Amino acid sequence: MQLLEERIRRDGKIREGGVLKVDSFLNHQMDVALFGEIGREFARLFEGQNVTKILTIEASGIGIACIAAQYFNVPVIFAKKNKTKNIAGDVYTSKVESFTHGKVYDIIVSKEFLHSEDRVLLIDDFLANGSALQGLIKLVEAAGATVVGAGICVEKAFQPGGDLIREMGVRVESLARIKSMSVEGGVEFC
Amino acid sequence: MQLLEERIRRDGKIREGGVLKVDSFLNHQMDVALFGEIGREFARLFEGQNVTKILTIEASGIGIACIAAQYFNVPVIFAKKNKTKNIAGDVYTSKVESFTHGKVYDIIVSKEFLHSEDRVLLIDDFLANGSALQGLIKLVEAAGATVVGAGICVEKAFQPGGDLIREMGVRVESLARIKSMSVEGGVEFC
Repeated sequence: MQLLEERIRRDGKIREGGVLKVDSFLNHQMDVALFGEIGREFARLFEGQNVTKILTIEASGIGIACIAAQYFNVPVIFAKKNKTKNIAGDVYTSKVESFTHGKVYDIIVSKEFLHSEDRVLLIDDFLANGSALQGLIKLVEAAGATVVGAGICVEKAFQPGGDLIREMGVRVESLARIKSMSVEGGVEFC
Repeated sequence: MQLLEERIRRDGKIREGGVLKVDSFLNHQMDVALFGEIGREFARLFEGQNVTKILTIEASGIGIACIAAQYFNVPVIFAKKNKTKNIAGDVYTSKVESFTHGKVYDIIVSKEFLHSEDRVLLIDDFLANGSALQGLIKLVEAAGATVVGAGICVEKAFQPGGDLIREMGVRVESLARIKSMSVEGGVEFC
């Protein structure tokens, strides 16, 4: 998606260690007009797939998922990273390893909101090692529901997550796929 | 807002200890069509206030804030609960006490995204003790920016937060104000 690639070139900041900061428009400050275009593109890519639910993970996927959901006319569910006392025991759970935070945590979704007849589109801002996406896929499988695919804003294609998920047979649509990046050379897209 | 009150009556679940579960439409599964109506109502209430930024707090405020922001044509910033290595040192910080989770945590916003000329609308799903909202107000004040007001979906008016924030001189618009609630008697609105 040219609009997103251009925005990453213009406003993304590359840091040592393979870190791409897009927090001025994607995951801290959020450009909702851009999200609208992203949502429209996901709707075009997954048209006719009879999506019934969009599933994302807190926190930075939520805004994109909600705005995209307006084009699908379906509810969004976000997987929670911690079990709060506001959620009863009936949850699906899986594990996610965060490379950013350097820890493993549980994600949960209430069983009330995922059913075997659901056709679920996964949406997230980043795909790198694929751990978050694998965690979400496991939640959908635990419910006996169908993963229609994954809509990703930025895929670090030089990391293994995208290939891993595609080899599982899951359709992954990434709007910007980064082939390589460096502080000196900037971002190169696939 | 009648639509929201009716939805709370229909789908909200009251638990012992003053817990109102609205996770089938507001803060776990999210009804984005309802969020659209909520956003439109916030836009009506704060029309002419020259809002330049919407500030919310992760995680459950993000979806509502993003959809509301479409009616204001402004970016959303969400305050983060943990400092990740993706955020540099230049942040505003304040403390929030979570009664749900029983702990105090820091919230942060990058100094890049809040400036003294900003007119900030705060948006959140719940107002009870007011700790999250006070934390957000402190972030805005630290930036020397102006708090235009707070748009809240559900205020537990029997808890002290709303009065506390209004006594600080901040305009608070809550779309559903709960006067009292009990497992036996259900919800009574103000």
